[in-house]
Amino acid sequence: MTAEIWDVIIVGAGLSGLNAAHLLKKRNAKLRILVLEGKDRVGGRTVSTNIPAANGIDRWDLGGQWVGSTQTHILELIKELGLETFLQFNIGKKVLHMGGPDARVRTYRTSIPALSPAVLIDFTHLLWKIDRLCATVCVQDPSKTPNAVELDSMTLHSYIEQHAWTAELKEEIGLCTRSVFGMEPSQMSFLFFLMYAAAAGGLLPLLENTAGSAQEFKIRGGTQQLSECLAEHVGWKNVRLGSAVTAIWQDAEWARVTTATDTFLCRAVIVTCPPHLAAKIHYEPALPSQREFLTQNMPVGHMIKFIITYQKAFWKEKGLSGEIVTGASTDSPIAVTFDATSPSGNAALVGFIAGQQASQWTSKERRRAVISSLVKYLGPEAASFIHYEEKDWAKEEYSGGCPVNVMAPGLLTYYHPSLRKPCGRLHWAGTETATQWCGYMSGAVQSGQRAALEVLAELCPMTLTQEEQEAVQRSLNVGSPAQQPSSTLSGLPTRKTAVVAVLMLSAALFLVHRPNALLKVKAYLTNVVFKKTV
Amino acid sequence: MTAEIWDVIIVGAGLSGLNAAHLLKKRNAKLRILVLEGKDRVGGRTVSTNIPAANGIDRWDLGGQWVGSTQTHILELIKELGLETFLQFNIGKKVLHMGGPDARVRTYRTSIPALSPAVLIDFTHLLWKIDRLCATVCVQDPSKTPNAVELDSMTLHSYIEQHAWTAELKEEIGLCTRSVFGMEPSQMSFLFFLMYAAAAGGLLPLLENTAGSAQEFKIRGGTQQLSECLAEHVGWKNVRLGSAVTAIWQDAEWARVTTATDTFLCRAVIVTCPPHLAAKIHYEPALPSQREFLTQNMPVGHMIKFIITYQKAFWKEKGLSGEIVTGASTDSPIAVTFDATSPSGNAALVGFIAGQQASQWTSKERRRAVISSLVKYLGPEAASFIHYEEKDWAKEEYSGGCPVNVMAPGLLTYYHPSLRKPCGRLHWAGTETATQWCGYMSGAVQSGQRAALEVLAELCPMTLTQEEQEAVQRSLNVGSPAQQPSSTLSGLPTRKTAVVAVLMLSAALFLVHRPNALLKVKAYLTNVVFKKTV
Repeated sequence: MTAEIWDVIIVGAGLSGLNAAHLLKKRNAKLRILVLEGKDRVGGRTVSTNIPAANGIDRWDLGGQWVGSTQTHILELIKELGLETFLQFNIGKKVLHMGGPDARVRTYRTSIPALSPAVLIDFTHLLWKIDRLCATVCVQDPSKTPNAVELDSMTLHSYIEQHAWTAELKEEIGLCTRSVFGMEPSQMSFLFFLMYAAAAGGLLPLLENTAGSAQEFKIRGGTQQLSECLAEHVGWKNVRLGSAVTAIWQDAEWARVTTATDTFLCRAVIVTCPPHLAAKIHYEPALPSQREFLTQNMPVGHMIKFIITYQKAFWKEKGLSGEIVTGASTDSPIAVTFDATSPSGNAALVGFIAGQQASQWTSKERRRAVISSLVKYLGPEAASFIHYEEKDWAKEEYSGGCPVNVMAPGLLTYYHPSLRKPCGRLHWAGTETATQWCGYMSGAVQSGQRAALEVLAELCPMTLTQEEQEAVQRSLNVGSPAQQPSSTLSGLPTRKTAVVAVLMLSAALFLVHRPNALLKVKAYLTNVVFKKTV
Repeated sequence: MTAEIWDVIIVGAGLSGLNAAHLLKKRNAKLRILVLEGKDRVGGRTVSTNIPAANGIDRWDLGGQWVGSTQTHILELIKELGLETFLQFNIGKKVLHMGGPDARVRTYRTSIPALSPAVLIDFTHLLWKIDRLCATVCVQDPSKTPNAVELDSMTLHSYIEQHAWTAELKEEIGLCTRSVFGMEPSQMSFLFFLMYAAAAGGLLPLLENTAGSAQEFKIRGGTQQLSECLAEHVGWKNVRLGSAVTAIWQDAEWARVTTATDTFLCRAVIVTCPPHLAAKIHYEPALPSQREFLTQNMPVGHMIKFIITYQKAFWKEKGLSGEIVTGASTDSPIAVTFDATSPSGNAALVGFIAGQQASQWTSKERRRAVISSLVKYLGPEAASFIHYEEKDWAKEEYSGGCPVNVMAPGLLTYYHPSLRKPCGRLHWAGTETATQWCGYMSGAVQSGQRAALEVLAELCPMTLTQEEQEAVQRSLNVGSPAQQPSSTLSGLPTRKTAVVAVLMLSAALFLVHRPNALLKVKAYLTNVVFKKTV
């Protein structure tokens, strides 16, 4: 077996790896860059597919689909590649079902669900506490967060049990965790949860589909185009599909990367695959124990996404937005749905089955349960669909889960520094290593850029500006006293906001039994308290 | 590449794999059994080595070393193989250092540490609560434990924060967790902790070195002999060292097992390696998602073991047992030490550096810090040692950690059934899959037996007795209503014990400020409350 020689090998042809390759090429066209990918396609956790629809065939995303206006890294890339975005439709009444199969199905119009007064107060209070904690989190080095050990020693579930008062809010948080992470609140460190929210600018941006939040825009033609365009720029001859990396050896001169059939030599490697897959690669010399302990403890979520197409968007005609939110206590397998009508007008809904619920149903039962839930919440028209398309990301080879790997308790304070720290010629990227919108497509792009700059600093430092060289140094020196204790995105609630929140709480408490006045309070809370913090 | 044909292939030549092979051979001598091992030795997490000592060279264990009289599976094997055990020396004063570098170093003679009265009461109360919970745990199917979801949604740390009152007890629990699991209390599910203790008959048996506990006996000549004798019985020609399994394919007729250089076909496979290593093997068809999610969330502990030899056991001459217990708050890297004088009289100490502390020191600093700690606690003679031998199990290839994999929160209630559930021709063993003394050598032996019986039930059911066939069915049908809600070993505290504990608590509270009377209370607590429950 003779080895091909390259300058840089990138493991994984998702957004992170291809963006790293793209940046390397842009800075130094002479660099020989090879991207190795286990799957038979580019895009990683983004994949777009043709689905039968009202006017023939149309295209939908079965993986990552949304971007938001504070996600600067992905927005710049979208602009550079000449792609277009369009708003997530969210006009009309939303449906909420919590508290068991027999509980009342409620509708609401605000971005905050139709919570009962007590739950709303509970939610406001909890949100205020979590956002205050978020503001103290050091995303770059979470061990520097005040009280880090304690926050990392408990699960999100334990925090909620201690600080939420109402059963409904606890159920809501479970739903949010499933929708955002594909996981239960019991499975992640509370400090990790705070770090993740801080990297997005607060908790609400993770949950909403309003301006600045995670579910704001979609990409016309689908998100997989981003990776396809990048592969085009990098050159398809430099992207090998069906080439899963099995081992990486390093010596004084070379890194040697092997797949089942080939061997490659190079000067630097960027590993971009999710931590649980990076952990399956054989490394020689072995990686530092801390790195191994870290990647062995970053479970990936379980998310099943479905797209269901219709002749027309009957929900809109009924004044519904298409958004349904259901708790695990109901008999619906759905966590959340949204309108997914295409820019060319083909009516569709998109939905997610996530966390524990994704393991509870067989494929056939699940489909039947999804349809009957849609009928229950949107009306009998939901049964007359054109096509039901589903993707269980746990079953996707070289993904094994979606949307993101979280951290179990007790990791961030001990092992976190090894998340981004290069090991010799090995550099680490992937959305899990991002410090802004970690876990999202934007984080993938940021992490690819950061790793590319690290490699350039090693192989051709002259291609970097002074600022970039300093940024690389700062990233490599996490733990230095100069570190800022907060993400630049972090939505710092001011003292004023805190005072407003407390006042609102008192007022809301007073109004608990006055339903008419309550609607105004809700609107006020939504506009004044929530919007100001993001 | 032509494939060799075998009946059964066993992945891993530790106690579990070799015991499975041994049992298969005993039941059906015609079965062609091959054991594949990545390391260049047998024994897995047991390894014995020659170390310079007072009278020349002697042999010590650098991995698993203790057995106890309730560990029936390993005791039967020891007997069958004709090996001998000897008691762990524990006569004399023990040293305890908790509460920071400047806290008083205390000594005590009982099996329970020299706790202050308030801490002793706190400990009694906590132990009583934990043992009561242990008695409710269904080891075979932890999701059947009352309140399972809640117990599995919190870390051990969170439980201790809620239920222990004194800072010293919290520090003690940290020390116990490090010593038993090589891990911090923040890193494991509280339900997992309860299950682990229940599988050992309660919490105290995990911690003590008295009759029936985990640290009762050692094996003359070392524990690796067990695996070496088993390999002898199985036939060394059937054990291939340096043969790490990289992939397992299954079709209707065969399982195909590959290493870097060879391919084997067989009818059944038993995978015995620790879960985080089993997760690195490539499986086709892919394993069920639940199994993948489980093994991705079972972190292994970090344990460094040292043996230090001396001209004479100077600690005994001073009336000390050699047992030192130090908290993470002190400047000592040691979690715990014991006398390790060999049966032929070569003086030695054995000690453990575990959990977070195992990551904090470089090898050179650590050795210096260990010696200076021994000098501090045992006297200046500790500096004049013959030899210092150390093993960092995190750096051992095809182990990557020791002594055991735990479960992070949120797993037992969702994914646990896949721990032992066969996947086609694939069967799972290893101490993590045991239901009695899970995590110990005895658990490894039990799990190997269970997996061997599963394979026999498939390949040659006539070799099984009726009881064995039923046992296999019971094990495969975890979740059936006939399941007993408690391990047979579980030390059920009776109502009487509970009453005694409450009475003792009241008495102890009364005696808090009467130090003379306190010694009697301690002895009483130790004899009446603790011993009765195990």
